[in-house]
Amino acid sequence: MEDHVIPRRVVIIGGGFAGLFAVRALRRAPVAVTLVDRCAHHTFQPLLYQCASGILSSGQIAQPLRAILRRRENVRCLLATATDVDATERLVHVVLSDGSGLALPYDDLIVGVGVRQSYFGHDEFAEHAPGMKTLDDAHAVRRRLFRAFEMAEAVEDPKERAAWLSFALVGAGPTGVELAGQIREIARHTLDREFSSIDPGQARVLLFDGVDAVLASFGPVLSRRAQRTLESLGVEVHLGAIATEVDERGLTVRRQGGESQRYDARTVLWTAGVEAPPLAGALARATGAKQDRAGRILVEPDLTIAGHPEIRVVGDLMNLNGLPGLAEVAMQSGAYAGRHIRHRVEGRKPSTRPFRYLDLGSAAYISRGRAVVKRGRLHVSGVVGWLIWLFIHIVFLTGFRSRAGAMMSWAVVFASGSRRERAFASGEAHAVDVPEAAAPSPRSA
Amino acid sequence: MEDHVIPRRVVIIGGGFAGLFAVRALRRAPVAVTLVDRCAHHTFQPLLYQCASGILSSGQIAQPLRAILRRRENVRCLLATATDVDATERLVHVVLSDGSGLALPYDDLIVGVGVRQSYFGHDEFAEHAPGMKTLDDAHAVRRRLFRAFEMAEAVEDPKERAAWLSFALVGAGPTGVELAGQIREIARHTLDREFSSIDPGQARVLLFDGVDAVLASFGPVLSRRAQRTLESLGVEVHLGAIATEVDERGLTVRRQGGESQRYDARTVLWTAGVEAPPLAGALARATGAKQDRAGRILVEPDLTIAGHPEIRVVGDLMNLNGLPGLAEVAMQSGAYAGRHIRHRVEGRKPSTRPFRYLDLGSAAYISRGRAVVKRGRLHVSGVVGWLIWLFIHIVFLTGFRSRAGAMMSWAVVFASGSRRERAFASGEAHAVDVPEAAAPSPRSA
Repeated sequence: MEDHVIPRRVVIIGGGFAGLFAVRALRRAPVAVTLVDRCAHHTFQPLLYQCASGILSSGQIAQPLRAILRRRENVRCLLATATDVDATERLVHVVLSDGSGLALPYDDLIVGVGVRQSYFGHDEFAEHAPGMKTLDDAHAVRRRLFRAFEMAEAVEDPKERAAWLSFALVGAGPTGVELAGQIREIARHTLDREFSSIDPGQARVLLFDGVDAVLASFGPVLSRRAQRTLESLGVEVHLGAIATEVDERGLTVRRQGGESQRYDARTVLWTAGVEAPPLAGALARATGAKQDRAGRILVEPDLTIAGHPEIRVVGDLMNLNGLPGLAEVAMQSGAYAGRHIRHRVEGRKPSTRPFRYLDLGSAAYISRGRAVVKRGRLHVSGVVGWLIWLFIHIVFLTGFRSRAGAMMSWAVVFASGSRRERAFASGEAHAVDVPEAAAPSPRSA
Repeated sequence: MEDHVIPRRVVIIGGGFAGLFAVRALRRAPVAVTLVDRCAHHTFQPLLYQCASGILSSGQIAQPLRAILRRRENVRCLLATATDVDATERLVHVVLSDGSGLALPYDDLIVGVGVRQSYFGHDEFAEHAPGMKTLDDAHAVRRRLFRAFEMAEAVEDPKERAAWLSFALVGAGPTGVELAGQIREIARHTLDREFSSIDPGQARVLLFDGVDAVLASFGPVLSRRAQRTLESLGVEVHLGAIATEVDERGLTVRRQGGESQRYDARTVLWTAGVEAPPLAGALARATGAKQDRAGRILVEPDLTIAGHPEIRVVGDLMNLNGLPGLAEVAMQSGAYAGRHIRHRVEGRKPSTRPFRYLDLGSAAYISRGRAVVKRGRLHVSGVVGWLIWLFIHIVFLTGFRSRAGAMMSWAVVFASGSRRERAFASGEAHAVDVPEAAAPSPRSA
C-alpha cells in the first residue's frame, strides 16, 4: 500500500522574480506548491521599457508561468487575484477572472506581489501619465510615444505641434533615465526621414525629479556622468522639481525655490514612486504586521511577519532595513524563503541565519553604447558599462527562448536604429467613434 | 527660377494591400500622394490568426506604414479616420485621434478601406465573439484562448470545466479553419504537460457554418480533404448550422432541418461574414454609387464609380462581378488604380482596358504539415500543400524585416509546439476590481 502523506501546502502569491526563485528553492522538497498570479506570465520587468519603446515584443519579455514551471512536478499555477489572507484559518482568498471566489489553504505562505506605481496621493494623474510596471503599461506607453509623433505630423498649429513633440518624464530613476534615452533615440535614429511636416529630431524630452540627482542610488560619480550623457543626447534634466499637476495637455512642476512652471507636453510618463497594492493592507490587518509609508510590510530578519513564522514577505513588497526594490533583492529573498521552508520540511535544524542581501551591483542603460554600472566601489560608464549591461541582461534572460531573439533585436536597433515592434493597438488612437454621417468641423489642409 | 507646378493630389484611404500597391504604382509619377489610415501600421491580415494563436508577435505581422514608405518621396502618411467624402468640392473629411477634423482636397481619390466583421444584424454578438480583422481582434482572441485553459484549470465543477474547454468557431472559411487547427494544436502540442487538473488535449473545437462545406471557395475536392484533415485533428465540423444566439456562456445554432441546439462554450470566435464600414455609405451618398448587400461599392470595369472618373474603389470594399475578398485581388486592383492615374498624369492616351483579376491561386493552412492550395485546376493538399503555403508566405512577407523571425517562429512551433507570443494583456483577465477589503464568497479548494 502506498503511503498517502499529505504534503505540506505552500502558497506563493506572485510570479515575479521573488516567487519564481522561491519555487526553484523548493524544487526537490516534498511540498505541494500553489503559485497564484493575476497574470499568466512572468514579466522581465527590467526590460519593460524596451517593450514600450518598440525594440522587444511582449513574448520576448513575458513568458507564461506554466511554460517556465512545466517540469516542476510539485507546483500548481493558478491565474487569480489574491484579495485577502485569513491568518487564523490559514487561507488565502482569491478571485478568478470570471469573478468567482476560491479559498486556498496553506501551511506556509510566501507573499511576493511586488509594488505598483504611486502617484503620491494624486491617483487622478494616472489617466494622463501611465507608469511602467506591467506589460499593459508598456503597451500604453508605446501607443502614446508613437502616436505623439503621428499627431505632431498631422496638426498644423505650431504650438500644438511643439506640444505633441514634447515628452515629459517624472522620475529620474533607472526607468525614467532609460525611457528618456529611448525617446531621444527613437526621435533621432528610428523616425528620422519618415515624416514630411516635422523633424522628429526636434522632439524635446524633459526629465523631472524631486531630488538633486539622476540615478541617485548609483552615487554622485555615476549620477553626474549619467546626467552629462543624457544632456549630450538632448535630454533636458530638471532636478529639484516636483510635479504638482498633470492633465491631458501637460504638467506643472514646483521647483525647490517655490516657483511653479507649466510645460505643454502631450505625453507625460510617470516613474516617480511605488506603493504596495491593496493585498498588503489586507495582510497587515490579518497579521498585525506593520507597513512603511509606501505600504510595504516590515519583516523580521528571516523575512517572516512577527508572530507568524508561517508567513514570509519577499521581493519589492518587503521592507527589511530599507533594502532597495531591485530584481536581485527579489531573487535572493525569494530563494531564502523557499530554502527556509525546504529545510524545515526536511527536518533539518532550523537555521537562525538572517537574510543577507549580497549586492551584485546594478546597471542602467542610457542609450546605445552607453550605460552605467555600479558594484560596490566599482563605477563604470560609457561603452564598457554598456558591454557589462549587455552581458548581465543576456545572462539573466537565460531560460527564455527569446534570448537569441533579444540579442538580434539589440543588434539591429544598435546598428540601424530600426525597431520592429512599433505596432500599437487601437486604444485611444482609434477612440474616434464616427457616427454614420459624421460632420466634423473641417479646416482645409 | 524653379518651376512651381502644383502636382496632382492623390488621396488614398486605407494602407492595406490595395492602398500600398496603389502607392507603389505611383512611385515615379509626379503626384502628391496622401495615404490616410486609422492605424499607423499595415497589417499582414493573412497571418493575423498566427498572432492570435501565439506564434507571431504584433511586429512580425504589422509594420509601420511610415517605415514601409520612408523612401517614397511623393507620399505623406496621415494617421486619421476618414469619415466622409465631398464629391463636389473633392474633399475627404478626416478626424484625427484627438477628435479634431481636417479636410483633404484631392484630384484623384482611391478608397481601399476594406471590410469589417459582420454579425448579420446581430451586433450584440460582437461583445462575446470577437472577429479576426485587426490586430486588436488578434489580441482579444489570444487573450480568450489562453485564458480559457487557465479558467478550466481553476474551476472545479466538471460542467464549468467542460464549458471552458469548449471552443466554438462560427464560419468555416480560411480564417475559421486555420483557427480551428491552431486551437487543437495549442491543446495537443503547446499546452500538453503544463496543467495539473485538466488535460488540455480534451479541448473540444466546434466549427460551424451555414453552408454545406468547409473552405467552400476551394471547391468540393479540397473542401472534403480539408474537412477530413480537421476531423482527424479532433475538430467537430457542423455544417448547415447557423448561429442564432451568442452570449457569454455559449451559443445556439439552428440546423437546416429547423431544430435548434445549445452549446456551452465559454470561447466563441466569429469569422462568418464581412460588411463595409460606415465610410462606404458616406461615399455612396456623396456619389450616387450603388452598394451590394454587404455594403460594398459596385464599380465600373475600370474600378471607378459611375459618373466619377476621379474616384476609384479597390480591394475588399469594391464589388466587381463578385470578385472574392482576397489579398491578391486587393494588390492587383490597387496596382491597377495607381497605374491608371500615373498614365493620365504622364499624358499617355488613357487605356480603356478593364481590370482583369489574374487568379494566382489561394492557400489555407490547416495544421502543421497540412495545407490546401488551389490554383486553377491544380488542387494540392497535405505536406506538399503545406510546403507551397510556406513558400508563398515567405515570399509575400518580403520587405518585412520579420521574415527571418517568422521562419524561425514557424520552425520552432513546427518542431516543438512551443509558442513564444503567449503573453496577453490584462483585458478581462484582470477585470477583477478588488476593493480594499474584499470578501468574496469563498469555497474551499
